[in-house]
Amino acid sequence: MKSKLLLALLTTTLAAGTAVAQVKVEDAIKFRQSGYGFMAWNMARIKANVEGTYNKEEVIKAANVIQAIANSGMGALYVPGSDKGKGWEETRAKPAIFTDKEKVGKVAMAFNKEANEMAKIAATGDAAAVGAQLGKLGDTCKGCHDDFKAKK
Amino acid sequence: MKSKLLLALLTTTLAAGTAVAQVKVEDAIKFRQSGYGFMAWNMARIKANVEGTYNKEEVIKAANVIQAIANSGMGALYVPGSDKGKGWEETRAKPAIFTDKEKVGKVAMAFNKEANEMAKIAATGDAAAVGAQLGKLGDTCKGCHDDFKAKK
Repeated sequence: MKSKLLLALLTTTLAAGTAVAQVKVEDAIKFRQSGYGFMAWNMARIKANVEGTYNKEEVIKAANVIQAIANSGMGALYVPGSDKGKGWEETRAKPAIFTDKEKVGKVAMAFNKEANEMAKIAATGDAAAVGAQLGKLGDTCKGCHDDFKAKK
Repeated sequence: MKSKLLLALLTTTLAAGTAVAQVKVEDAIKFRQSGYGFMAWNMARIKANVEGTYNKEEVIKAANVIQAIANSGMGALYVPGSDKGKGWEETRAKPAIFTDKEKVGKVAMAFNKEANEMAKIAATGDAAAVGAQLGKLGDTCKGCHDDFKAKK
């Protein structure tokens, strides 16, 4: 029942036990790797825009993706048994993400907050503000990776 | 320069040549596999909600993800040379996706239209309407897969 506790922490509105229960371990790992992988592209796009030629519309699209994924309730993908297993590749989730509920809740909330803020700032087209927010958002990614994602 | 033509078709507002040019073939393939992979979870979630216990908020989150990814400008990830290569796995993109610009534009536009519509309908919480729209949206996925994605 660990996943239910985690779920309650990470997503307050997601209905526990419906669609969630049907996701197989390998699929759950593949789906979460996909979510993080697609966010990586969009983080890189925002960075490239801030450091190179700034295109407001591209940054808005990228920020909207990150916001939607951040708010999608990915906590539901940390199903029981998915501490080990192969999605696209072997999971690098550390055991603590299944047990340290308080810290997981904290880093997840910090990430969601900064992702929502990024979408708001991207809409203004203010490149400098987007750059500053990218730093804050990146810190919340790193904050989770440091504790909960094993290095390659 | 094929990718630029494709890009112009798939995304009218994305700035060609900025961030895009910097994506390596292997990364581009991994990013697009991630995008499709994450959408697969969210399509499955909507299906599970329609067929089981319906949770409005979960469906909204899933539909928002699909909409954001559909509008993200993934055409930019079909960089030159990425007709072959390994991201998470060997690409299954058929050669035609790099050459049949007219059809690619058509299926991409159909997908975007139905993804945007799904987000609108999800917001209403009308489970039957969401179910009907899921069929239309799924048809646009299939429409692209049939022509442009090799079977396993």
